[in-house]
Amino acid sequence: MKLFLKIKYDGTNYAGYQVQDNAPTIQAELNAALRDLFGVDCDVTGCSRTDSGVHAKCFCATVQFRGGSDFETKIPCERIPLALNFRLPEDISVFYAGFVDDNFHARYSVISKTYEYKIWNSPFRDPFFRNKTYHIPKPITEKGLENMQKAAQYFCGLHDFAAFMSAGSSVKSTERTVYTCNVSRNDEEIIIRISADGFLYNMVRIICGTLLEVGKGNITPNDIPIIIDSLNRSNAGPTLPACGLYLTEVQYPV
Amino acid sequence: MKLFLKIKYDGTNYAGYQVQDNAPTIQAELNAALRDLFGVDCDVTGCSRTDSGVHAKCFCATVQFRGGSDFETKIPCERIPLALNFRLPEDISVFYAGFVDDNFHARYSVISKTYEYKIWNSPFRDPFFRNKTYHIPKPITEKGLENMQKAAQYFCGLHDFAAFMSAGSSVKSTERTVYTCNVSRNDEEIIIRISADGFLYNMVRIICGTLLEVGKGNITPNDIPIIIDSLNRSNAGPTLPACGLYLTEVQYPV
Repeated sequence: MKLFLKIKYDGTNYAGYQVQDNAPTIQAELNAALRDLFGVDCDVTGCSRTDSGVHAKCFCATVQFRGGSDFETKIPCERIPLALNFRLPEDISVFYAGFVDDNFHARYSVISKTYEYKIWNSPFRDPFFRNKTYHIPKPITEKGLENMQKAAQYFCGLHDFAAFMSAGSSVKSTERTVYTCNVSRNDEEIIIRISADGFLYNMVRIICGTLLEVGKGNITPNDIPIIIDSLNRSNAGPTLPACGLYLTEVQYPV
Repeated sequence: MKLFLKIKYDGTNYAGYQVQDNAPTIQAELNAALRDLFGVDCDVTGCSRTDSGVHAKCFCATVQFRGGSDFETKIPCERIPLALNFRLPEDISVFYAGFVDDNFHARYSVISKTYEYKIWNSPFRDPFFRNKTYHIPKPITEKGLENMQKAAQYFCGLHDFAAFMSAGSSVKSTERTVYTCNVSRNDEEIIIRISADGFLYNMVRIICGTLLEVGKGNITPNDIPIIIDSLNRSNAGPTLPACGLYLTEVQYPV
């Protein structure tokens, strides 16, 4: 048995999910809270490694006692989220706890993950969206938005996304299957939503940066398949800042 | 001529709107930005004095040169918001600038003001609503919400709101006219929205605290007129925390 947690966090003040020396991380905060609550060192496995400044509305993680012994606690499962929140900083919140089999893996068992990228498209910054959206002062036109929506469809399906990966990661394959990719606008907020079986390093932020180039009229929707086929990072758009990115859903086999 | 500004701010890090010695205030930030932009000391008059930690989605203010001389600038009006935002901290944003007659007064010309109070009603805190809502972990039932909606109607109209005023303010009259008072729920967020010709000190936060007592079942909607008539602060509910309160609209004669 492993403990299974669902967590929200505002990533603004963290150097990402994964533990690092000399920098605050989500994982380090979880480790400290778990040790304090259960009285033993724990190993936390997260569903992904979000970057510095990236947020999560639903991050999933499993917890084992260090050494891998069976997870046992006298604390009723439904009380674990509040007990952990009491020990965590206010920008992290556990909102679900349950138990899963030992063969369940927080990262490798994932069927799909969904990210949202939020753009604040207004001449004036919004104090309430500071560090929570990417601010683009110049208006994206209706035509620009339509083109972003068209362009988004080209990302769907199984592709080699090598052109949409930052250097510095070592992966066996750069093929991924994007299930859905949509662009919507709600007043001054533009949201790009992408689901896939997995993502390469910075893949969402580079796809969003490329879609934004379409929105600005610098490239056309028809350029997207050409960029994908090129397998060349320098043909894609810029990597958008972390502050607009949210991990919003993680799906596992039922 | 006076300069007329519309401003948004996240009040979390401020000791309220009005200038104070040795504490950061919205007005002090505006003064500094205006002096830097126009090269002269300015007098800013705000539409109200929001308390420490209270937010504004639309705060209105007028600006005059110190001494009251006619406001003149070579900067095109439509460029003033961005020029000021460049000089203001990120949690304050000017989103409109225009000119008004000298007889226009940011506070005394107000026809109505609208406040919203946001309650996060979930067992688990939300990192993205930290300092932006008041967190009530225990669920307000559907019946409780209905009762809050009924109770809210009793506040509408001209009443002596002495029972809904904190000590420490000197006003000539404690009569105010509430135009609308509504309670709505959107998933885990409960919003109380109140418009009136004016508000006594802490009036919105005390009305919301009293409505919440209704929602929790501690008092009934029918108790509201009795509490109003008592003119006695100790009969009303608690003053809710500032972090849930937003000034959202200010109406002036067209």
